[in-house]
Amino acid sequence: MTSPAEPAPTRRLAAIDLGSNSFHLLVANYQDERLQVVARQGEKVQLAAGLDDEGLLDEATMQRALDCLARFAPFVEDIAPGQLRVVGTNALRDAANSQALIERAEALLGCPIEIIAGREEARLIYLGAAHALAEEGRRLIVDIGGGSTEFIIGERFEPLALESLRMGCVTFSRRFFDNGEISDKRMRRAELAALSELANIRRQYRELGWEDPVGSSGTIKAAAAVLHAAGEAPEGVITREGLAALRERLIKCRRLDRVAMEGLKPDRARVFPAGIAVLGAVFEAFGLEQMRYADGALREGVLYDMAGRNSPEDSRLKSLELLERRYGVDERQASNVAASAAALFDQVRDAWGLDDDQARFLSWAARLHEIGLAISHSQFHRHGAYLLEHSDLAGFSRPEQRLLAFLVRAHRRKFPLKEWQALPASVQPSHARLARLLRLAVLLNHSRPEQPPGTPRLSTDGEALRLWLEPGEDPMLLVTDLEQECVYQQAAGFGLELLPAS
Amino acid sequence: MTSPAEPAPTRRLAAIDLGSNSFHLLVANYQDERLQVVARQGEKVQLAAGLDDEGLLDEATMQRALDCLARFAPFVEDIAPGQLRVVGTNALRDAANSQALIERAEALLGCPIEIIAGREEARLIYLGAAHALAEEGRRLIVDIGGGSTEFIIGERFEPLALESLRMGCVTFSRRFFDNGEISDKRMRRAELAALSELANIRRQYRELGWEDPVGSSGTIKAAAAVLHAAGEAPEGVITREGLAALRERLIKCRRLDRVAMEGLKPDRARVFPAGIAVLGAVFEAFGLEQMRYADGALREGVLYDMAGRNSPEDSRLKSLELLERRYGVDERQASNVAASAAALFDQVRDAWGLDDDQARFLSWAARLHEIGLAISHSQFHRHGAYLLEHSDLAGFSRPEQRLLAFLVRAHRRKFPLKEWQALPASVQPSHARLARLLRLAVLLNHSRPEQPPGTPRLSTDGEALRLWLEPGEDPMLLVTDLEQECVYQQAAGFGLELLPAS
Repeated sequence: MTSPAEPAPTRRLAAIDLGSNSFHLLVANYQDERLQVVARQGEKVQLAAGLDDEGLLDEATMQRALDCLARFAPFVEDIAPGQLRVVGTNALRDAANSQALIERAEALLGCPIEIIAGREEARLIYLGAAHALAEEGRRLIVDIGGGSTEFIIGERFEPLALESLRMGCVTFSRRFFDNGEISDKRMRRAELAALSELANIRRQYRELGWEDPVGSSGTIKAAAAVLHAAGEAPEGVITREGLAALRERLIKCRRLDRVAMEGLKPDRARVFPAGIAVLGAVFEAFGLEQMRYADGALREGVLYDMAGRNSPEDSRLKSLELLERRYGVDERQASNVAASAAALFDQVRDAWGLDDDQARFLSWAARLHEIGLAISHSQFHRHGAYLLEHSDLAGFSRPEQRLLAFLVRAHRRKFPLKEWQALPASVQPSHARLARLLRLAVLLNHSRPEQPPGTPRLSTDGEALRLWLEPGEDPMLLVTDLEQECVYQQAAGFGLELLPAS
Repeated sequence: MTSPAEPAPTRRLAAIDLGSNSFHLLVANYQDERLQVVARQGEKVQLAAGLDDEGLLDEATMQRALDCLARFAPFVEDIAPGQLRVVGTNALRDAANSQALIERAEALLGCPIEIIAGREEARLIYLGAAHALAEEGRRLIVDIGGGSTEFIIGERFEPLALESLRMGCVTFSRRFFDNGEISDKRMRRAELAALSELANIRRQYRELGWEDPVGSSGTIKAAAAVLHAAGEAPEGVITREGLAALRERLIKCRRLDRVAMEGLKPDRARVFPAGIAVLGAVFEAFGLEQMRYADGALREGVLYDMAGRNSPEDSRLKSLELLERRYGVDERQASNVAASAAALFDQVRDAWGLDDDQARFLSWAARLHEIGLAISHSQFHRHGAYLLEHSDLAGFSRPEQRLLAFLVRAHRRKFPLKEWQALPASVQPSHARLARLLRLAVLLNHSRPEQPPGTPRLSTDGEALRLWLEPGEDPMLLVTDLEQECVYQQAAGFGLELLPAS
């Protein structure tokens, strides 16, 4: 008999999901790979409805969003740093002025807000749903949001296909039901627009196949509730016939402001016809007979993902490996540069007040700094930055991707002053510090040695750096490189001084 | 006994190489995989020396270049279209105003001029050298140009490593010998700068290894000639000791305008010390004991490459396959879109005066239009265009890459008017036509069918298009897509009309 294992400590985790239709808060205790919900809040902020024709969020909508977050704030006051994650999705991805809202919201919550990409949203939704579903087998998860709809096929905890399409109950409501009327023609136009989006993924998804179609999110929950209340389907199930009947009932309402049904909350009524049009197109494109509703979505996924961070299951590590493999990184060089970067980092860590997370990103940037070579040797730092900025990298938020992209962009040639000044002011100091450490690490390894080279002594004087040089393998070459680097760093307003080691 | 094969027809081919130091003309007859030289001309135009501090070519240099091309022009007057290729290298890559020179030169020669990327230059140099070298075994080819130096390791006709470094006898002359003095310190500074560039490739190249180091280009030819004239080395060979002695002799000259040696043409003297510094760094970085000079370089490579074009050896086909494989293109969809594009193209070919070359590029763009999906689904047309614009694609000139990039950029969503207007005016009409055909081909295959769909009738009315629609598999969906497409094309100033097929 084995003795019982020490019980794992409980972690209090929290997630806020700034959706295009609703904002949600979830606070839970995490222990033994399970979440125990402590608090749950949701409000229909309808962010996407506040986007004007130029893609700008209006002030009233921003205020609505901030008011909601002010109500959420007390729930997350005592969450430890790093245990709260706030993610924004489609409406914030689209809004041209989302930065303004984000800054005010960050000040209010006292923590950074991450806008996540569509596929990352899909991955997190799957992670949440996969924990909620006990059954084995291949499943299709559909999550109809306010501005985007996510489609995931997966088995157990492994997603096999992740997509996010630009259609949702709020945006389609604006686009096809803007004058408040509901008609067969309007429903069909919305369905055709959804089918046109679905055409991009239909074939691939049908070929992968699934046994169990599952829907999450408010639209699907409401549809199931309405059908059940009308006695047209078992609880939590949407059937093809039921959906067709529901569509007819909605058309008979004739106007959005007259939509009222048992099982449907009044604050969902106005976006319900658009949501049903999207759902109808999903049934049509995938040839579904029925779909069951399951709880557990983005915010649950965010919590499970956070629970696994900085552990062997950190999905970011898998993303980095995929990049290294796809772009054929020279592993020896990458790990030598990472070793040098870590050795330089450790010497200035206390003086510059750097933390573990920054050490991690410096080492990841070192591993990836040459991926742009797969495109072309010429300007490969720019190509690498492009790939890191734009790739779907599971587990990474956009600010994290931008940090990696900036470090790779800045690792050679002139320090990219313009790109640096375009970063949010709050991250400029720390990003520059990491970039300067990476530059030195790359130069120390310029001759691509077999073993990581010795690391010279490095010290700080405010933002300025001092590097003590010992005679090494290629002394003259290294000195030439480093003298040039002093010029580059000075041109960007940073001090770097070379001193002879005693 | 087999009867002797029909003799292959003779083709007259010509190449002009607009190098950073010299311009070269080569005219040859090609038969049975051999070139027989008809005419050969070379002039030291020193384009790179005419770049000012802002990277602009001055008027005197442009005039020198055009005067040289005016002397070349009679040699290529009777060359058939498509059998003359004019390529520009480093100085034209770097010059901010090279477009001005190119337009004047194109008018003078009556044929397009292609600026080629560094690795493409290396590939063509290897192709030329490989045909000139009879021996088997792995070889290192070094070609020191005016603005860049190419390094290739290969066996037979297969390059194993291709690199182009930004250092050359003209640019290093400006950088390190600008006041006309030659000293040990100045030579060493130039050598260290070259070693710093070489550090990027030294390890990889030494690990690949070679049996036979070969140098081409004027600097190496001159070095071998000077050493042979002084009795310090056998004909056509540069030894390490000989090179060291030559370096000392140059330092003793003390000034560029006093460099005069037997075997050295006076018009090379001013850039010879910089060339020797680069060559010395190459010997040092690669640990060479000797190098032999071999004829046959970029211009020969251009001719051999042209001879193989549109044949199974077309190196462009291999580049396309590499891209398809690296980015995991969905082959069925790619070939369905290519089939639809070809069927549409054939219907308007005569009316729009399109040619085989345009058919080829349309089909290639169709094969590649989805490569950006490997980066992200969101905006994948932009990612694909980025990859095509920036990747080293063997066999493709830059205008050809830009055409592919534009077609992929333009294949979905709004027609990219800004990017289109940024193209040279001369290619705008044809690029737009091909892009509009590709867009339609993509829409016809939007539902990703297993088989290529039927192709609707297409006709032109000037630039306007008319498409006759037959009821198909997904009629309503296709019509929705095509109606949206009419809006997109009209917004860009192009006509597209949908008509019911009778």
